[in-house]
Amino acid sequence: MQFGIFGVGDIAPDPVTGYTQSEAERISNIVRIAQRADEVGLDVFAIGEHHNPPFIPSSPTTLLGHIAALTKNIVLSTSVTLMTTNDPVKIAEDYATLQHLAKGRLDLMVGRGNTVPVYPWFGKKIRDGVGLALENYNLLHQLWREDVVDWEGQYRTPLQGFTATPRPLDDVPPFVWHGSIRTPEIAEQAAYYGNGYFANHVLAPNFHFKPLVDFYRQRFEHYGHGRADQAIVGLGGQAFIAKRSQDAVDTFRPYFENYAVFRGMKLEDYMRDTPLTVGSPQQIIDKVLTFQEGFGDYQRQLFNVDSLGLPVETVLEQVELLGTEVVPVLRKELESRRAPGVPDAPTHASLVTARYGDAEPRQPRPNPNRGDNLSGPSPYHDTDASVQARFPAGV
Amino acid sequence: MQFGIFGVGDIAPDPVTGYTQSEAERISNIVRIAQRADEVGLDVFAIGEHHNPPFIPSSPTTLLGHIAALTKNIVLSTSVTLMTTNDPVKIAEDYATLQHLAKGRLDLMVGRGNTVPVYPWFGKKIRDGVGLALENYNLLHQLWREDVVDWEGQYRTPLQGFTATPRPLDDVPPFVWHGSIRTPEIAEQAAYYGNGYFANHVLAPNFHFKPLVDFYRQRFEHYGHGRADQAIVGLGGQAFIAKRSQDAVDTFRPYFENYAVFRGMKLEDYMRDTPLTVGSPQQIIDKVLTFQEGFGDYQRQLFNVDSLGLPVETVLEQVELLGTEVVPVLRKELESRRAPGVPDAPTHASLVTARYGDAEPRQPRPNPNRGDNLSGPSPYHDTDASVQARFPAGV
Repeated sequence: MQFGIFGVGDIAPDPVTGYTQSEAERISNIVRIAQRADEVGLDVFAIGEHHNPPFIPSSPTTLLGHIAALTKNIVLSTSVTLMTTNDPVKIAEDYATLQHLAKGRLDLMVGRGNTVPVYPWFGKKIRDGVGLALENYNLLHQLWREDVVDWEGQYRTPLQGFTATPRPLDDVPPFVWHGSIRTPEIAEQAAYYGNGYFANHVLAPNFHFKPLVDFYRQRFEHYGHGRADQAIVGLGGQAFIAKRSQDAVDTFRPYFENYAVFRGMKLEDYMRDTPLTVGSPQQIIDKVLTFQEGFGDYQRQLFNVDSLGLPVETVLEQVELLGTEVVPVLRKELESRRAPGVPDAPTHASLVTARYGDAEPRQPRPNPNRGDNLSGPSPYHDTDASVQARFPAGV
Repeated sequence: MQFGIFGVGDIAPDPVTGYTQSEAERISNIVRIAQRADEVGLDVFAIGEHHNPPFIPSSPTTLLGHIAALTKNIVLSTSVTLMTTNDPVKIAEDYATLQHLAKGRLDLMVGRGNTVPVYPWFGKKIRDGVGLALENYNLLHQLWREDVVDWEGQYRTPLQGFTATPRPLDDVPPFVWHGSIRTPEIAEQAAYYGNGYFANHVLAPNFHFKPLVDFYRQRFEHYGHGRADQAIVGLGGQAFIAKRSQDAVDTFRPYFENYAVFRGMKLEDYMRDTPLTVGSPQQIIDKVLTFQEGFGDYQRQLFNVDSLGLPVETVLEQVELLGTEVVPVLRKELESRRAPGVPDAPTHASLVTARYGDAEPRQPRPNPNRGDNLSGPSPYHDTDASVQARFPAGV
């Protein structure tokens, strides 16, 4: 079971002090938060992509590439990478580069995003959202698994003899989670490939997403990747923790009740009806155990603790409490409850073992060419022959 | 005067040992080389973008974001960032993010690139190359200087009320060099904006690029940025250094004469006719002094020392010799020859001073909005009123 934090790098005025962080401060602070998450032993740090204020993460791989150099063990991820408005070729390149730099400590969550104007800014139509997400991920999947790709689709210019460079680390692509909160087609695609399925599980009634998760589990089994209860599920959640329950509520209330999205709501009602937990470490633990009862065994729990204009020192305390008081107990509890045969979330190490066993992983070494990718017999010393067959040799 | 190294992250078999680095090794080695360049006091580390084997830098900002965390003083740059096949919106976002992470230690070189098939891979036509480079840079320039951009052009989908996030660090965009080896339109554009002009100066007869550099200088003066001899010029160069001249030639010859591009050429002829220098530190120094005589005072000299399949330990030695034996002497020599009034290359610090004097730089702080960039009166607390006028307030 993996535990971590996720966010979208939003900037909001602190309702208590009135202070708004600058973009420069927010970027530095996010780097500090990721470092602290690594230091206290959390498993995952994930940040979501946006292309508009008040958000700063418009270039997740640049930010995560930096964080990779400043952290040791934590897996870096996204929440989400936009599969609708990014070119899948650039995603293949950006995240393979990041995977190398992070020495495999990378996976990513792909999704459609929910910011309407981003589609026209990048020349797309929102009514193509599902089609774009499906086609683009299909291409990304292929680009990371075949040295040479010929491809034609509906939404992107065709590719002939294209090699996405660098190839993934150890020729094992980053594990992918499909983030979705309403689209069965996305759950179906995740199941088809045996990829992970992530239900954001924030801003929603408790167990609102259970039908989608169950559907993904059934389809995962249908496609032969294992039993339904062995499918790879991740959940979001929002928490605010203090040693004493009442301190948590008192501190968090002004942030919650003054935030635009929640205005007019009462904190206690929202805590009862949604995954948000505000309280002592034990209360957070108890709430997460209800997730496990409702959704079944799952592999990844991410908490949103860095939003609503909370000051960075408060967020760092949250990360600390998660890492020291909440997660160690949850790890033990959930491990003891887990049904036999339910796997952990894949990591680079587990994927390398699954592919190669005890053998040495492939390390792609390019052949000399004129730099145009069209002048050699194949781009790498050991490109698989079946793939070479589609390469325009002798051009 | 700035000195540094530049390369394109190519992988080639070592002709002496027969060994070809894997992409994974090459990426790690490039990070080591950048760190060494920083340690020995070089001013600039630049890496060029490619999207095909045998090159690894398909995602320069991811790589440089990582290097930024592992270096202290060196300016990070590119050689080049493709202005033809990248979306200028993504360039604005990626490099502004990198500029924040590098705390201002960033500039970039934009150019057309010279890999023919990259155009169709990204849905572009090579015959539009110059038009794409000009229009895309114009948009990039605007995106970094206006909080809200309405834009329409020939090659990209229009933008309405778009804000590139994050805003540049201190609201001062990264300095841009235009790299070009044959196109007067590009030199003209560099001069128009008062940007830098970089002549690659590798693989070329000595002073082949002087007419383009002179043209850029004249147009720089024409547009009112200063005298022609104050224009901001950078030059490339290729060097291989050993304490004793003959050792340099003996070591380098098999790398040079076995490399596909140079096959059939004699090293000595190439050294005489082109900027390549192979020899002692003093010989490198003497050659660079001829560049200054021929091109006039200039601001940046980059050396290509990491190519042709040279093993990483050899490249690290080259960086060491450059930093300890060559550059300190050149700094002193060129400084003493420089005409009065010729400026240094701009840095983030100098650009901040030029813009703000002793005042505090602007730190953009976003206003709350629904995340769609269309619901507030302006995206930042202090967006300039003339720019707000174009923002669709009240939408």
